[in-house]
Amino acid sequence: MVYLHRDSPIVRSEGFNSQARVEVRAGGRAILATLGVVDGPLLAPDEGGLSEAAWTRLETTDAQPLTFVHPRPVESLSLVRAKIHGRPLTAGHFAAIVGDVAAGRFSDIELAAFLAGCAGGRMSDREVVDLTIAMIAVGERLAWPRTPVMDKHSVGGLPGNRTSLIIVPIVTAAGLLMPKTSSRAITSPAGTADTMEMLAPVELDIAAMRRVVEREGGCLVWGGRAHLSPADDALIRVERPLDLDSPAQLVASVLSKKAAAGATHVLIDVPVGPTAKIRSMEAAERLTALLREVGHAVDLEVLPVLTQGAQPIGRGIGPALEARDVLAVLDGAPAAPADLRERALLLAGYLLELGGAASGGSGQALARTILDDGRARGKFEAICEAQGGRRNPPVAPFTRSVTADYEGRVTGIDNRRLARLAKLAGAPQDPAAGLELQVRLGDAVVRGQPLYAVHAESLGQLEYALAYAATASDVIAVRDAV
Amino acid sequence: MVYLHRDSPIVRSEGFNSQARVEVRAGGRAILATLGVVDGPLLAPDEGGLSEAAWTRLETTDAQPLTFVHPRPVESLSLVRAKIHGRPLTAGHFAAIVGDVAAGRFSDIELAAFLAGCAGGRMSDREVVDLTIAMIAVGERLAWPRTPVMDKHSVGGLPGNRTSLIIVPIVTAAGLLMPKTSSRAITSPAGTADTMEMLAPVELDIAAMRRVVEREGGCLVWGGRAHLSPADDALIRVERPLDLDSPAQLVASVLSKKAAAGATHVLIDVPVGPTAKIRSMEAAERLTALLREVGHAVDLEVLPVLTQGAQPIGRGIGPALEARDVLAVLDGAPAAPADLRERALLLAGYLLELGGAASGGSGQALARTILDDGRARGKFEAICEAQGGRRNPPVAPFTRSVTADYEGRVTGIDNRRLARLAKLAGAPQDPAAGLELQVRLGDAVVRGQPLYAVHAESLGQLEYALAYAATASDVIAVRDAV
Repeated sequence: MVYLHRDSPIVRSEGFNSQARVEVRAGGRAILATLGVVDGPLLAPDEGGLSEAAWTRLETTDAQPLTFVHPRPVESLSLVRAKIHGRPLTAGHFAAIVGDVAAGRFSDIELAAFLAGCAGGRMSDREVVDLTIAMIAVGERLAWPRTPVMDKHSVGGLPGNRTSLIIVPIVTAAGLLMPKTSSRAITSPAGTADTMEMLAPVELDIAAMRRVVEREGGCLVWGGRAHLSPADDALIRVERPLDLDSPAQLVASVLSKKAAAGATHVLIDVPVGPTAKIRSMEAAERLTALLREVGHAVDLEVLPVLTQGAQPIGRGIGPALEARDVLAVLDGAPAAPADLRERALLLAGYLLELGGAASGGSGQALARTILDDGRARGKFEAICEAQGGRRNPPVAPFTRSVTADYEGRVTGIDNRRLARLAKLAGAPQDPAAGLELQVRLGDAVVRGQPLYAVHAESLGQLEYALAYAATASDVIAVRDAV
Repeated sequence: MVYLHRDSPIVRSEGFNSQARVEVRAGGRAILATLGVVDGPLLAPDEGGLSEAAWTRLETTDAQPLTFVHPRPVESLSLVRAKIHGRPLTAGHFAAIVGDVAAGRFSDIELAAFLAGCAGGRMSDREVVDLTIAMIAVGERLAWPRTPVMDKHSVGGLPGNRTSLIIVPIVTAAGLLMPKTSSRAITSPAGTADTMEMLAPVELDIAAMRRVVEREGGCLVWGGRAHLSPADDALIRVERPLDLDSPAQLVASVLSKKAAAGATHVLIDVPVGPTAKIRSMEAAERLTALLREVGHAVDLEVLPVLTQGAQPIGRGIGPALEARDVLAVLDGAPAAPADLRERALLLAGYLLELGGAASGGSGQALARTILDDGRARGKFEAICEAQGGRRNPPVAPFTRSVTADYEGRVTGIDNRRLARLAKLAGAPQDPAAGLELQVRLGDAVVRGQPLYAVHAESLGQLEYALAYAATASDVIAVRDAV
């Protein structure tokens, strides 16, 4: 956003109105911004105000004069309209759109229209390939001194699924290269980068990331700082509040980031469950076929793995609470969540085999050895140190338990509504906020037994989350034992 | 938008972030707004800032305290996501969505996603009916003392198509009731309301509109002031910058407004041409079938009429320039644009027959008599007076002609690019801005002969429009005469 006074000579002579898109120039740089026209004493007629996003993108200083001009029409918007109206797009079209998106030429409503126009099965496989290639082309692309370069991604929708923080130490301890970049939460209460940030700095630039990988063979950093996929960063900013994602965007987003990060072999964890992001085997198979096809087109060895998605992994939901689960598994603590441990071992085993560090069928056993003999824990500490130093997750000042209304058995856990509840409690912006699950599917419970605890950093949010919990009593369904 | 300081106790205790949706309460009213968090001295920690839209909607004063709370989740957004993902919606779903849209609970990106999700043939006829009924239900609905109540609408995409300003005086002079509400431009350089505003006030509330209709039998006012279709008003605000419309939205928008305005008989002018909004006979027939079906469902007698759409109507494009064309036709000036005159007579004739003021086949002759004997002109002046007084259209201070590069014949006129050019010149926000066409399809031209003149209210916009004209030389295509 850029703000000008209604009496500014620019607003008058150029005929600008609120909500107009304007080109702002300062120094040698130019950005497109949405104009806000203001009255009153906030700005002098010869002053301009910039939002933080505009300020950062323009790389200007207080001292530089700003120049405002009518922007050239963003021609690729007509391609977005064509797509919305059902016409397929070519590789050249996607290159034009993605180039403009990456350069910040799309307004938020234009990004929203593009996302909605590509969702709901409206992208052919060929279009997803072309979108992915276009997204790779506009970002930086990392090269690593040796291959294979291992990577993994989880499709998400499953709260607490923080296996990467366990897998990367195992795989790198086995001698493979795994420079892992992760995202922050898009529509979930925590992304892997949000959780890792509870334990070490994750906002490393590419040079810093390289130093970590040279020293330790792997890293766990936030991908956004590296600007590996600037188009994806822009799209995700709108996807998040819209809570909207589609297989096409998902595949293009994930594989463009992986290719840009220099990966050669990528395992994709696809949780399937009635309230996960992928709800049916049919949808899972469509997604895995698309992942394989697009991976092939962009020269990535992609291994999709379908996994349990019926209930959250581990106990914590939210950055700090999930980080505690991870530490417990790495420590080999007796109370560590077994499901998180077993899932990490399963996926690490596949990666060890995929990268040639273990022969077929022996990967999981090797992973187990590396975790149990403490090598994974040592490697994790070393990676944290290399990234800037280990730290401890924060603890929420406000917690309250939600208890069972009846005696019975846990027959259903709604991942989506648990995720919403954790977000209402403040996650991921408030890192200590979230939920701590105290039961699993199939558990017998008595009346009044705690089902989960809500953690919040403010009383307002705690109460807001609890109010939602009161209206959504079957987030954890308890039925008469039979 | 609502703005709070980063150090505001509300931002801190509630964990609000920029871009968050917040509920703002003042007096007895509450609105949903998007939060902007500001630093520096603009706002004190205990102050809130409201955008003009938020201020107007909240109906507050400086003195009233503002209360900020986390809004309840807007549940109908999950229906929007379902629609985007390809699931059909029911009448109840549309009622929920449209109710939230009308109440201002959707952010702009959410509106954009809804529009894109409904475009491109993704709405069944049943869904368009349900959307239309929902849009009628949330607005006011006018009742008139007698029937029939005539109305008309043009589907648009054809610059200069300002027949309503001629038709309403003819039809009302013949004794029929025609309380015409019009829209401002959505994606075009002028809407009928924008053009009428050049000649008389159009922002009448319902009481004032009633007084005009009681006195004169008809009016030509802006429909937005009457809040006849508040959901449509919200959708159009986002449709306009997106330059996105679809048959489904078009039919729901038009017929909901007509039903809400109390019309019983509606003529729909559907221009068909290679660069009009409707480009093929096939698309025209789909649209007319949809108009008839939805009209039937909401108890409207709808008569779609397919018309010429190959080139603009009249000479002017832009509010003031179009108003001048209208006055010339009403005056019977020899230089008046014949195409605008004949088109208005054709459509007025159909309306006279549809309303029973003329027998089948004789409507056009009656319309011609009423126009030529000065009754239409007199009625138009009377309507303008009743609406608050006739005025004269403004004249642009800056004009420049664009001339033919070659000798030859005009073989094509691109409505869309002419419209864009007129918008770049400033229309409709700058009412005097726009284009004045000096040739028609088939005209022979010599090198250097003016094709059209660009009118602008600022030099910056004139030059900007001319720069675009230079890169789009085939806006008016001139080919070797053969």
